[in-house]
Amino acid sequence: MTDISPLALPFPDLPPIAGVRLGIARAGYKAWDRADLTYAAFDEGTVVAGVTTQSLCPSPEVEWCRAALTLGRARALVVNAGNSNAFTGHRGRAAVEAIAARVAGATGCRPSDVFIASTGVIGVPLPVDKAEAGIDAVLAAPPASWQDAAATIMTTDTFPKAAITHAVVDGRRVTLVGIVKGSGMIAPDMATMLGFIFTDCAIDAPLLQGMLADANRTTFSCITVDGDTSTSDTVLAFATGAAGNAPLTSVDDAGADAFHAALADLCRTLAQMVVRDGEGASKFVTVSVSGAKSDSSARRIGLSIANSPLVKTAIAGEDANWGRVVMAVGKAGEPAERDLLSIRFGATQVASGGLAVDGYDEGPVTAHLKGKEVEIGVDLGLGDGSATIWTCDLTHGYIAINADYRS
Amino acid sequence: MTDISPLALPFPDLPPIAGVRLGIARAGYKAWDRADLTYAAFDEGTVVAGVTTQSLCPSPEVEWCRAALTLGRARALVVNAGNSNAFTGHRGRAAVEAIAARVAGATGCRPSDVFIASTGVIGVPLPVDKAEAGIDAVLAAPPASWQDAAATIMTTDTFPKAAITHAVVDGRRVTLVGIVKGSGMIAPDMATMLGFIFTDCAIDAPLLQGMLADANRTTFSCITVDGDTSTSDTVLAFATGAAGNAPLTSVDDAGADAFHAALADLCRTLAQMVVRDGEGASKFVTVSVSGAKSDSSARRIGLSIANSPLVKTAIAGEDANWGRVVMAVGKAGEPAERDLLSIRFGATQVASGGLAVDGYDEGPVTAHLKGKEVEIGVDLGLGDGSATIWTCDLTHGYIAINADYRS
Repeated sequence: MTDISPLALPFPDLPPIAGVRLGIARAGYKAWDRADLTYAAFDEGTVVAGVTTQSLCPSPEVEWCRAALTLGRARALVVNAGNSNAFTGHRGRAAVEAIAARVAGATGCRPSDVFIASTGVIGVPLPVDKAEAGIDAVLAAPPASWQDAAATIMTTDTFPKAAITHAVVDGRRVTLVGIVKGSGMIAPDMATMLGFIFTDCAIDAPLLQGMLADANRTTFSCITVDGDTSTSDTVLAFATGAAGNAPLTSVDDAGADAFHAALADLCRTLAQMVVRDGEGASKFVTVSVSGAKSDSSARRIGLSIANSPLVKTAIAGEDANWGRVVMAVGKAGEPAERDLLSIRFGATQVASGGLAVDGYDEGPVTAHLKGKEVEIGVDLGLGDGSATIWTCDLTHGYIAINADYRS
Repeated sequence: MTDISPLALPFPDLPPIAGVRLGIARAGYKAWDRADLTYAAFDEGTVVAGVTTQSLCPSPEVEWCRAALTLGRARALVVNAGNSNAFTGHRGRAAVEAIAARVAGATGCRPSDVFIASTGVIGVPLPVDKAEAGIDAVLAAPPASWQDAAATIMTTDTFPKAAITHAVVDGRRVTLVGIVKGSGMIAPDMATMLGFIFTDCAIDAPLLQGMLADANRTTFSCITVDGDTSTSDTVLAFATGAAGNAPLTSVDDAGADAFHAALADLCRTLAQMVVRDGEGASKFVTVSVSGAKSDSSARRIGLSIANSPLVKTAIAGEDANWGRVVMAVGKAGEPAERDLLSIRFGATQVASGGLAVDGYDEGPVTAHLKGKEVEIGVDLGLGDGSATIWTCDLTHGYIAINADYRS
């Protein structure tokens, strides 16, 4: 898949984050001619927060990160592309431990300061010799750019994805940069969604963890390409503290709200980029659900719509088939009353009170569907719960990527 | 879609069921040159049982049948193809009431003795004038065959689907015939799964209802094509009693077990036929889950596998990508322990104890995947719960049917 997604965005201008140094190397995890090991070194004092897959079959990298996150400190990040190392038993676990030991031995940090993520095929243990040689190479390599790092964590992504936000904390302007790869389970080799956020803000690890978990609920947890949850999904946020602000320790601190909002904004932008690189995507779709019994109910209804193959193919076909949205609401298993339900496409109300609106004109709906950005609005008429889900359409490209050749 | 599914089965030889008379007519619900109204008349004393969609946005036909089922008596069945009449508010409801009144007026039965099902596009009220003219025509028409009826209830189905079983009850051989259409939400116009079962067995309506609901749990409720639940799914079973057996009134009656088993067997055959006509299907897939905490947990894990776009495209691509099965187990949200999980394709064990089996050879798995019948076995190693799910693969045909032209 060398064609770049029609929904791709240009790579932004990104400044360095003080306290973060990047590197890339060729470990050769697959038979490809490109860098596939990404490294980030962090200054002493860097704290870390993270969220990981809800899968009950997580990779050993995910388990490693979960354990290390309880300590909240980070000195290094290693990302392997081309092999997820998931479902590889004791051999996969040994590979993760070897990577952490290699970095700790070379840099003088503790193994638990090393965060590790891997993305690619499931079921094949990560080759330890290639990982160790890659780490040795990256430690001797010249500094890499954000674009290098964002490109090296890719598997079958079609464009590198990064974003930046700022906030003012304690009179200092702090910067947040994030890079991300994947789009759910997007690749023929089982890719994953990995996201890494870097900031110079001084902030306590528990507070950063709370803010990241909160932002994740309405950003990364509200995107879907195919409904298939990876064994390796991981988002980590590293804060070096180099901005020199008085460290944030509580949500009540001045600047905490601004930082929290900037973090959520960054997560939203990164999450939407993953959807823009969804397998075979030709439309970026926003599903806005309101009037549900609760926010979580709204989210499940939104995901039912966004994961419906029939809704997604209708959008691909630019087909104003709003009955498929009714179907997806009806099957969601959440409180819904047919005769209170209303539906819009873009700005056009198509149905309310349990049937099509009087004088319904398909023309403006079809015109809206011809664009690259499609919005579906659903109001349940039951309460105050709301959610926004982002997804893409389902096209021949998805089948071509996942069925037309061997993984 | 005029190509017949590669998984199609020949139409079976079917005898008449005493007490059932069939008819077909052209109501003209769509601009097509074919019969689209199916009628069945039942002798006095016919009892009925039924199961309907779990959708919270059901069609008025579904609501009508649910109310009529509480009385347990049937004299007529009307099936409209080409328009589901769902999400049409008071106008859809009025169409259903008009159909029941027309049949009741012409035949002298009660409106509540008339069962009605419709399948096709959502959101367009069924035209009452066409329905009434169709009923008048069918009442004057010559008798129709089972094949006529099975073909007339089709929408975008590629072959008519019917099956037969027998049981001996009270020394009498009773016959059960079923016809079915659809494959979940298979059609560009939003088709539905409709199934109709006819038997000459004498049986009380509450017992028939209990047996049908039980059979449904492991048959129609265990198939999926795309995970999209229709607003109109309905299965009705009509028992005329013409076989002359002493009526079955309890599960403890002699012959009740035999009838129950025959009914479940018929439901399983009909359900599998729907999968064989799944949109774009090229493989018939059986997902067998064992060792789960409970049967319902096993069913949800099986559906997570059977609905996974990545599992379904791997099967379409004849790709032994068993990591995608791991992924689907992990995301199901049901009890699972990665390191107790084992997976087989056909007769070949591919993974156990949390990793690939020693000396795993992909050869026999790939050979199995090249056939038209694929089996995936998953054992959770946790308990005695088991379930079997039937599905099909996900191919370009699905996208072509649902996205390549306007519905």
